[in-house]
Amino acid sequence: MSHDEVFLRNSWYVAAWAHELIDGKMVARTILEQPIVIYRGESGKVVALDDRCCHRAAPLSMGRIEGDDLRCMYHGMKFEPSGKCIQIPGQEMIPPKLGVRSYPAVERYGLVFIWTGDIEKADPALIVDYPPLADAKWRGLPGYMHYKANWLLIVDNLSDFAHLAFVHTNTLGGSEEYAYTTKPVAVERLDDGFRVERWHMNAEPPPYHKKVIRNKTDHVDRRNIGRMLVPGIFLLDTMFAPAGKGAEKGVAVEGTRQYRNAQFMTPETRSSTHFFWNYLHDFDIDDPNITLSLRHSLEEGFMEDKAIIEAQQKVFDADPNYELLAIRADAPLSHFRWALKGRMEAERNARAAA
Amino acid sequence: MSHDEVFLRNSWYVAAWAHELIDGKMVARTILEQPIVIYRGESGKVVALDDRCCHRAAPLSMGRIEGDDLRCMYHGMKFEPSGKCIQIPGQEMIPPKLGVRSYPAVERYGLVFIWTGDIEKADPALIVDYPPLADAKWRGLPGYMHYKANWLLIVDNLSDFAHLAFVHTNTLGGSEEYAYTTKPVAVERLDDGFRVERWHMNAEPPPYHKKVIRNKTDHVDRRNIGRMLVPGIFLLDTMFAPAGKGAEKGVAVEGTRQYRNAQFMTPETRSSTHFFWNYLHDFDIDDPNITLSLRHSLEEGFMEDKAIIEAQQKVFDADPNYELLAIRADAPLSHFRWALKGRMEAERNARAAA
Amino acid sequence: MSHDEVFLRNSWYVAAWAHELIDGKMVARTILEQPIVIYRGESGKVVALDDRCCHRAAPLSMGRIEGDDLRCMYHGMKFEPSGKCIQIPGQEMIPPKLGVRSYPAVERYGLVFIWTGDIEKADPALIVDYPPLADAKWRGLPGYMHYKANWLLIVDNLSDFAHLAFVHTNTLGGSEEYAYTTKPVAVERLDDGFRVERWHMNAEPPPYHKKVIRNKTDHVDRRNIGRMLVPGIFLLDTMFAPAGKGAEKGVAVEGTRQYRNAQFMTPETRSSTHFFWNYLHDFDIDDPNITLSLRHSLEEGFMEDKAIIEAQQKVFDADPNYELLAIRADAPLSHFRWALKGRMEAERNARAAA
Repeated sequence: MSHDEVFLRNSWYVAAWAHELIDGKMVARTILEQPIVIYRGESGKVVALDDRCCHRAAPLSMGRIEGDDLRCMYHGMKFEPSGKCIQIPGQEMIPPKLGVRSYPAVERYGLVFIWTGDIEKADPALIVDYPPLADAKWRGLPGYMHYKANWLLIVDNLSDFAHLAFVHTNTLGGSEEYAYTTKPVAVERLDDGFRVERWHMNAEPPPYHKKVIRNKTDHVDRRNIGRMLVPGIFLLDTMFAPAGKGAEKGVAVEGTRQYRNAQFMTPETRSSTHFFWNYLHDFDIDDPNITLSLRHSLEEGFMEDKAIIEAQQKVFDADPNYELLAIRADAPLSHFRWALKGRMEAERNARAAA
Repeated sequence: MSHDEVFLRNSWYVAAWAHELIDGKMVARTILEQPIVIYRGESGKVVALDDRCCHRAAPLSMGRIEGDDLRCMYHGMKFEPSGKCIQIPGQEMIPPKLGVRSYPAVERYGLVFIWTGDIEKADPALIVDYPPLADAKWRGLPGYMHYKANWLLIVDNLSDFAHLAFVHTNTLGGSEEYAYTTKPVAVERLDDGFRVERWHMNAEPPPYHKKVIRNKTDHVDRRNIGRMLVPGIFLLDTMFAPAGKGAEKGVAVEGTRQYRNAQFMTPETRSSTHFFWNYLHDFDIDDPNITLSLRHSLEEGFMEDKAIIEAQQKVFDADPNYELLAIRADAPLSHFRWALKGRMEAERNARAAA
Repeated sequence: MSHDEVFLRNSWYVAAWAHELIDGKMVARTILEQPIVIYRGESGKVVALDDRCCHRAAPLSMGRIEGDDLRCMYHGMKFEPSGKCIQIPGQEMIPPKLGVRSYPAVERYGLVFIWTGDIEKADPALIVDYPPLADAKWRGLPGYMHYKANWLLIVDNLSDFAHLAFVHTNTLGGSEEYAYTTKPVAVERLDDGFRVERWHMNAEPPPYHKKVIRNKTDHVDRRNIGRMLVPGIFLLDTMFAPAGKGAEKGVAVEGTRQYRNAQFMTPETRSSTHFFWNYLHDFDIDDPNITLSLRHSLEEGFMEDKAIIEAQQKVFDADPNYELLAIRADAPLSHFRWALKGRMEAERNARAAA
């Protein structure tokens, strides 16, 4: 079954947090509508295989890790990381092409990235570069959420900061004013997405930030720089500087607090999504309560998003032809969909040519 | 998506009890497979809008009432009762045709009627006339039930009183004899449904009536006059007169007790139904225990119906082509389906001509 | 709706245990995608009728047994065991062809077998012959399980004893060695299935057997003879003889313990199955703890199978085109599917000719 029209295949997708694989635990997860089992072999290697034994379709995730190999616990067939079958109990000859599909898997930033497209194109250099995830000066607690919604509805959500004002008034946003008085300073169209910058001058700190700072009432100049990249990666650099000190002109203002936020949306199916995220802070990094407070605040905010986004999905489930009307603030998300569509067309054409 | 073949559109349907809208509560309800939000504005006006923001399809029922208007709480767009968008935070110009569908809504008899058909035909004079619902001499407690069944299966149920004998022996019916010894005195075919009259002479009072009268063993002459009207409205006038005093000849017998029952079946989808009902009595109307007892008895009876009717729906779900064989008692329901079909065809032809 | 391509129709299927019909209880059960009600009339006769009233499709299993007849409790129509309608309350004339489908039903071995195919071919002599089920020297407790899986996946499971080694290591199997060191002595292809014999010499008794014998460590020679017959009947004769005494040469060794196991797989739908089974022992038959222990052990083993088999079904639900690769041990199950397919083709051809 080909899903070419639905997903971009030739791209790295986050499949798991590396910490999900401790203690020999297998992760059985559907990624882009493919059932996949992920595990760490005894050598430390991370392996991703089709989660269906080629013999009778029993899930390999119900099997047993042996070294770097995986044994199906239905009739005992054993597979090596390449997917090749290397043992059939009670049968000496093993047909050479007997085996299951193996997916390229790369561990980076504490995340497992996998590739479900053309295997020869799976270049680890294509994995997104986001240094804060690997930098000890930033601290965070990694999170995971499951959405019963198409991943592009989450992309849409993150593409328009105006929703902060209405969905997150009491958590991440702070006031409805944010939607009326701030506008993107610049929306930069990129080949693989967009970059948007938005300032909110001389504002009260939003609730989540207030919880982790000392001077809770001093006004701040707030800057958000977001980048949304195919296939569905959102990188957000947030700065709160004491108000009126020239932060918007590039002045390094004392007392500035910064956050780095990485969010990875991986389609489970066309109507459900794996959402991996980490919200990092660069101050008081040895105070675990700060880290935990931010984790809780972000989760609270994401639950607000999830309620709306899953409700949208239900609307589309009930009426797949329901048509949306764009407003001016949709320019970034329209560009993103256009960029994604271009990549998918290129992929389709390359396959047709091959 | 057009549902012309499934529902009669040009007709008023009950969408809610007016009391569901107190305290600024919004009712999110699917009516004839359309998601609709219903609310009362601050002026007192009842408004019914498509429950999907035209921008990103977020449910407006997750929004906020502001005066008579409704604000979507995703990106803050505001809609007036006509459905027109009147504010987009962060954008001055509003495209004139930006908006959501608005449905004609009329409050009558403590019910909210809405119209999902051609807007120019939404004449409030077409709303069914049933004076007892507005007459202080009748008392009742309004009820609502949800059926996982096509509304016509409920119409069928109410169209044949014989089911009282078997389904409701111990609640609303009283004895299986009712099915054998009574027959419709007259079945009158109407343009928009039928009228049926049935007498049960010299019988014990049925259990639900016994509970609210003093002489529980005196025999009664029982008369039911039911009217079933398109699109699915059942109006039942019930009389219990002391037996043998000539009630059947039109004599006004002392000690007679009467009931008026209005039941409105509104399709939610083609396989589920909103059922609004009120069972009114004209005696001891200031004794709340009588009113409550009748409410409980009727609910008990409707639960008996619901068990059978939802079981029928499952049979049709499993085998949509299962064919029924009519008996003589089906004449009224056959006529009703014929009348409804005629109205639907006329609607289709009018649209084709336009 | 014709299911000819999915099921073999002209065959007896187990529909219920006879003990399910005590105390006037009706069994409402879908068999080969037909809703059926089964009951025992007052004369003792077992009756199987279409579980849908021909009038308005109400389930007859919500009705009332009257003598050997069944009355629908919606409008009171009564049906005799042949399915013919014999009473319509309030209507004297009954159309002669008014009625519901009746299914041939035969009680044997404490089981109710029914026939959903051509009625003139329903010969009770075709019911499978398995004397231990009717022989007082064998004792067991009948069981029932419901599988959310196609019945052929259960047939597959039982067709390859190698799964004992991996799925049932700690219950019915005993060791993974069973898969490596034993092989079928003979696979005999039958017209209606196959017969397979497998010996495991000088082995520890498996856990379930250990629980019911006294000398728990003495090695045994274990022999399994299984027969799998269309449409899905598995008959398993198991023997544990003290090791090294020549059981494999036909010597009747003292201290031998034997089991007889009958398993009947009846499709509920194409993706769910009724599973009837009885595991019989020929020793200590008056000790109810032995019988109960075996019942529990088998249930424990079947739950292990169920976990794998229902997981397989989910794989096929998600990707109906997923293709399996056969290994040598699949020869018996391949033959079974071939035999079943032949029977189904013959059935189809006979109908086309008629």
